[in-house]
Amino acid sequence: MDRAARAAADAGLDGVLVAPGPDMVHLTGYQPPAATERLTLLVLSADQEPVLVVPTLEAPDAEHAPGAPALTLRDWTDGKDPYAVTAPLLDVAGRFAVSDNTWALHLLGLQQTLPSTSYVSLTSALPMLRAVKDAAELARLEAAGAAADATYEEILKVRFSGRRENEVAAELARLLTRFGHEQVDFTVVGSGPNGANPHHEAGERVIERGDMVVLDFGGLKHGYGSDTSRTVHVGEPTTEEQRVHDVVREAQQAAFEAVRPGIACQEVDRVARAVITEAGYGEYFIHRTGHGIGVTTHEPPYMIEGERQPLVPGMCFSVEPGIYLPGRFGVRIEDIVTVTGDGGRRLNTTPRELAVVD
Amino acid sequence: MDRAARAAADAGLDGVLVAPGPDMVHLTGYQPPAATERLTLLVLSADQEPVLVVPTLEAPDAEHAPGAPALTLRDWTDGKDPYAVTAPLLDVAGRFAVSDNTWALHLLGLQQTLPSTSYVSLTSALPMLRAVKDAAELARLEAAGAAADATYEEILKVRFSGRRENEVAAELARLLTRFGHEQVDFTVVGSGPNGANPHHEAGERVIERGDMVVLDFGGLKHGYGSDTSRTVHVGEPTTEEQRVHDVVREAQQAAFEAVRPGIACQEVDRVARAVITEAGYGEYFIHRTGHGIGVTTHEPPYMIEGERQPLVPGMCFSVEPGIYLPGRFGVRIEDIVTVTGDGGRRLNTTPRELAVVD
Repeated sequence: MDRAARAAADAGLDGVLVAPGPDMVHLTGYQPPAATERLTLLVLSADQEPVLVVPTLEAPDAEHAPGAPALTLRDWTDGKDPYAVTAPLLDVAGRFAVSDNTWALHLLGLQQTLPSTSYVSLTSALPMLRAVKDAAELARLEAAGAAADATYEEILKVRFSGRRENEVAAELARLLTRFGHEQVDFTVVGSGPNGANPHHEAGERVIERGDMVVLDFGGLKHGYGSDTSRTVHVGEPTTEEQRVHDVVREAQQAAFEAVRPGIACQEVDRVARAVITEAGYGEYFIHRTGHGIGVTTHEPPYMIEGERQPLVPGMCFSVEPGIYLPGRFGVRIEDIVTVTGDGGRRLNTTPRELAVVD
Repeated sequence: MDRAARAAADAGLDGVLVAPGPDMVHLTGYQPPAATERLTLLVLSADQEPVLVVPTLEAPDAEHAPGAPALTLRDWTDGKDPYAVTAPLLDVAGRFAVSDNTWALHLLGLQQTLPSTSYVSLTSALPMLRAVKDAAELARLEAAGAAADATYEEILKVRFSGRRENEVAAELARLLTRFGHEQVDFTVVGSGPNGANPHHEAGERVIERGDMVVLDFGGLKHGYGSDTSRTVHVGEPTTEEQRVHDVVREAQQAAFEAVRPGIACQEVDRVARAVITEAGYGEYFIHRTGHGIGVTTHEPPYMIEGERQPLVPGMCFSVEPGIYLPGRFGVRIEDIVTVTGDGGRRLNTTPRELAVVD
């Protein structure tokens, strides 16, 4: 919390305002049952001790949060105006970073109560707040990656043809849980034309011999995320299918090899995109190359055109180029990569070749 | 969507902006996997057809939403500025209602792109957007209430003493599911001193003979919510425990009898609070008397001091006064009540007397 407050001051801000969600978990360990219309807000600034504004009825839970000893609780009771309770903690003309997922309701409440304050999203102001992982966090991400690898190895042994996508998805969920995940966030099984929609989850479609199948699965193990994609083929692939897969694999490998301290995030995206564009599939790579991972499976830094943030050792993110041919099939290959002192290291280590399944 | 746009125009607004969440489900039936840093936004205004701004990779899912035929999709690709894509749909100096749970990130993006626009929370601008239920919705809420009643009847038969709170909570979850809930939102089991924290969920504490136990459980059945509280006693209660329970029961009954079209929501709160204050426990009733329920288990209208919204036939909300004696025990009694033409009707019908359990 001190580091966050100092980073905000260094960025010319008067403080950081954090609503329930991953930033609050990261900073205080406090995880209310849900973000709601009741204001819970962590107020950090360089010139005062951290304060947690909290509904009176949630105060007993907040008092037991791991970070509670370093916090002053300021509770408010139903019927009172929580923004009036918060206002005395804020510089009346201050500029604050506010966590991205704060409800608009609460931001509007603060803007109305203190009309001379201004706000910027926490991710744009302090994008690196959670991005660089320490050794303990890296160990957890590595354990989550190993569990995802074990899941992939086991899923190759199951039968695909003749089964519905959501049956295979249920197997993925069971395996993630078996290998230690306490939370499964996604189990994508995109067979045949469904694979061409990168956010297709899994449906009723029966997988057939001859299908490409995109698998993308992950969740949280001991509070840290896994996220892996592999594309498999039911039976022998056609020349074109093999070629599209080769292009994606080459793009993923090139992007991985580009990872090193100091290069901009957008460079990782450009390297992957160049390989795919060169091969003639540029218009079918319709998403960014990667996203950060930590206490969530989806966070900064983003490997995307326009992101000039330099890579720093300890950052962890996905490298996941894909090609999506509408109505036909898709291919995506994804590993979690961490930035080392002189390059990158994969936290997923299963083979990236096109596996043939039954 | 037309009604919402007209209601906004009647309220002097230029439109309604809706992020993924219950408002979007209610208006379009579209429920993206999760609200994220990627902008998905429904734009409603009286002078144009509804538009859904959506990430390109989620467009195929959005096209299959129940409300899709009435929507124009405007997709944007990773790397593009989604606020620049949204801006042409908005009056450059317009005033908009924005759904409460919209991420601050997105509101800030719109405010920065169109600095002359202004915003107000959807709940404050159009609090009744989802509050008045039609006959089909009432039937679903009634079915959810009946399932909660059945759950309570069954839970009275289980053993409490000697079991951990979370074992009883798991029984509540199983029963809600057995009686048709597809989603369990909460299963509070607050025994002894834990009952004095109104948002205690359920923990490792072993329930003992002589404990008061607050039960508060609910979720969604066919997409509509249940939410019921009863307080039971393990063995015979003391005179004081019985008296506190009697006060809460009297407060809950008085508040229920106050429900009729035209009275302000705050009146329901005042009636319950008056009974408890009169009995000398006013300072121990530390939350509002109720909240609305519909496609969520927690929504407007709120029965709270300061809420002058008059009750309208078809509104559905909880009536749930409580008394919380720190370190000792708590009592809460809660029913879902709907406003009829001339009064109120409970959607929960199990007895409110203090039940003695084993």
